[in-house]
Amino acid sequence: MGEYFAGVDVGGTATRVSIFDYGSMRIKVTAPTGKKGQNTALPEQVLGMIDYACHAISIPPDDIANVGISTCSPFRRNKDYRVVISPNLCDGLVLGKENAQNDWTEIPLEEYVSKRFRVEMGNDCVTAVVAEHMFGAGKGCDNLVYVTWSTGIGGGAYVDGHLLGGKNGNAPHLGHMYIAEDGPVCGCGNYGDLEALTSGTAIAREYRREQEFHNQGDGRDYSETCAEDAFREYDTNCMARSIINRAARNFARGLASINALLDTRRFIIGGSVFMKNRALLLPLVIEEFYQSFPALSGGVEIVPSALDQYLGDIAALSLVIPEDWVQDWEAREPWKLASESIPWKRG
Amino acid sequence: MGEYFAGVDVGGTATRVSIFDYGSMRIKVTAPTGKKGQNTALPEQVLGMIDYACHAISIPPDDIANVGISTCSPFRRNKDYRVVISPNLCDGLVLGKENAQNDWTEIPLEEYVSKRFRVEMGNDCVTAVVAEHMFGAGKGCDNLVYVTWSTGIGGGAYVDGHLLGGKNGNAPHLGHMYIAEDGPVCGCGNYGDLEALTSGTAIAREYRREQEFHNQGDGRDYSETCAEDAFREYDTNCMARSIINRAARNFARGLASINALLDTRRFIIGGSVFMKNRALLLPLVIEEFYQSFPALSGGVEIVPSALDQYLGDIAALSLVIPEDWVQDWEAREPWKLASESIPWKRG
Repeated sequence: MGEYFAGVDVGGTATRVSIFDYGSMRIKVTAPTGKKGQNTALPEQVLGMIDYACHAISIPPDDIANVGISTCSPFRRNKDYRVVISPNLCDGLVLGKENAQNDWTEIPLEEYVSKRFRVEMGNDCVTAVVAEHMFGAGKGCDNLVYVTWSTGIGGGAYVDGHLLGGKNGNAPHLGHMYIAEDGPVCGCGNYGDLEALTSGTAIAREYRREQEFHNQGDGRDYSETCAEDAFREYDTNCMARSIINRAARNFARGLASINALLDTRRFIIGGSVFMKNRALLLPLVIEEFYQSFPALSGGVEIVPSALDQYLGDIAALSLVIPEDWVQDWEAREPWKLASESIPWKRG
Repeated sequence: MGEYFAGVDVGGTATRVSIFDYGSMRIKVTAPTGKKGQNTALPEQVLGMIDYACHAISIPPDDIANVGISTCSPFRRNKDYRVVISPNLCDGLVLGKENAQNDWTEIPLEEYVSKRFRVEMGNDCVTAVVAEHMFGAGKGCDNLVYVTWSTGIGGGAYVDGHLLGGKNGNAPHLGHMYIAEDGPVCGCGNYGDLEALTSGTAIAREYRREQEFHNQGDGRDYSETCAEDAFREYDTNCMARSIINRAARNFARGLASINALLDTRRFIIGGSVFMKNRALLLPLVIEEFYQSFPALSGGVEIVPSALDQYLGDIAALSLVIPEDWVQDWEAREPWKLASESIPWKRG
């Protein structure tokens, strides 16, 4: 019997399923994340994608020993299983959402997939810290925080070698820590939290607003302004520079707050906003971070993600792969030899 | 052989040593916390107080099985031991401190007391959460945060039944989380952290400033204004009300940030500012707390400390008492029958 493991990555936009055996990633299947129909539609899609992937490499789905699921969250515990209550997936949670595609208030993802497979499920940043701890920039480090700086802000953490879970498995939802007394509103409804002040979405929103205000009536359309526009114009546009500097300062103060709580050894920063602009952002963040209470900030390292582009493939899998694979995988890094993704065709 | 345990509580102002046997607290000795001389003066004082207490009840100090130490912190790891690097004790850490009594930058408390006794040492709020978990408002709760709202702000936490330590045992130093983009300066040097915005010291500072500003030239001296003055005048003075409402709002937003990180089940709030004014503060805090992201704030309880006035005696001890005492102590609560404290006389 071959030993296969599936990694499932459920994002707000796309969902990916990859199948690994000891040697390599055998296949990866991608599809838009389904948001229509009953609230079991997405779990059904995940099962369908696993079946499709297995069929494509001619193995029976029963040969999958374990399924690791990496998903946007939060979760809520519902008897034996956790349901997904992410505003990115469940439009029913967002009062008066424009272009709502569904009325879901929860998704029974864990329970549904568990009907056919053994499942481990975690928030996508929690699975990322597990992968970085196993294979990436966190090897051998027992006090470790992964932070993604992307469209949103999220994280995963080990303290004293213990992977933080919390009562519903929602620790550490660090994008929703307040770092301003007031300030812009977050997708979660909070005013002035880390995500509302520093995410790619926040940078784009601020830069768009500044452009519209300063260039009133110039006839141009700024509605498509994105965070990367601000980064591109950092050296030439003082509005862009001021917005990015403020975001970097607040991001660093967010790290200082997280460190005050967790007394960590190392921050690993990933996510598209940071990774694309890390030559600019890392020095800004480091300079601000060490201005906070030296007795706590001293001895903390801030480093970029090592797995970065591979996290989508390896993060979910790292929840379930056998311990005796780890050493060899560490040496071989089979996720780097992944085949191209194929689109899912609904059966 | 009798089995005795010592609890040592090192505060910024006073230090207390109590000796317990299975039946009861046998004695408590109190002295001002020594801050003069070499940086071993305070550890020597603690040993002297243990000896003094043992002598007073006619037991040899060698009969002390274990010493639990509860102290203000932070700590820094120094080889096998942690040194205390608290700005409240080490004037050498505070640049240009007025009325500096010493030039200490660290205190070798753990190492020094370990020369004669088996020692467990923790921050005073970490020992408080251990005690509340064992005997107080946190019994049976594995996701639990204790927060003291007093002259300063501090905390201790269990996540998934694991007592958070961190690389130097400084988790969770929650008073030094940023919750404002700018704002007043904290004793630690941070601008806009939880302690700078909500502590008793902060409330007193804001109220004093408002009084001086609004009553300019009335010839009265406001320099002794304290937080309790503001609370006493909450119903009759709109400045007092506004300052306390703002502190309560920021305290609640601090709890929401902690909960975003730790996904806790229950907050236990203690400390003199809160306990004296909890009829006013608890509803304000609860109302604000539940306005944060419902997917995270739902299902969290906020309750007052159960051990409160006894924490000074029982918190340090709870680090070291034998497991087979716990059930009986829970029923008998021997710390409530403590004898009056006697002053330490240096030998």
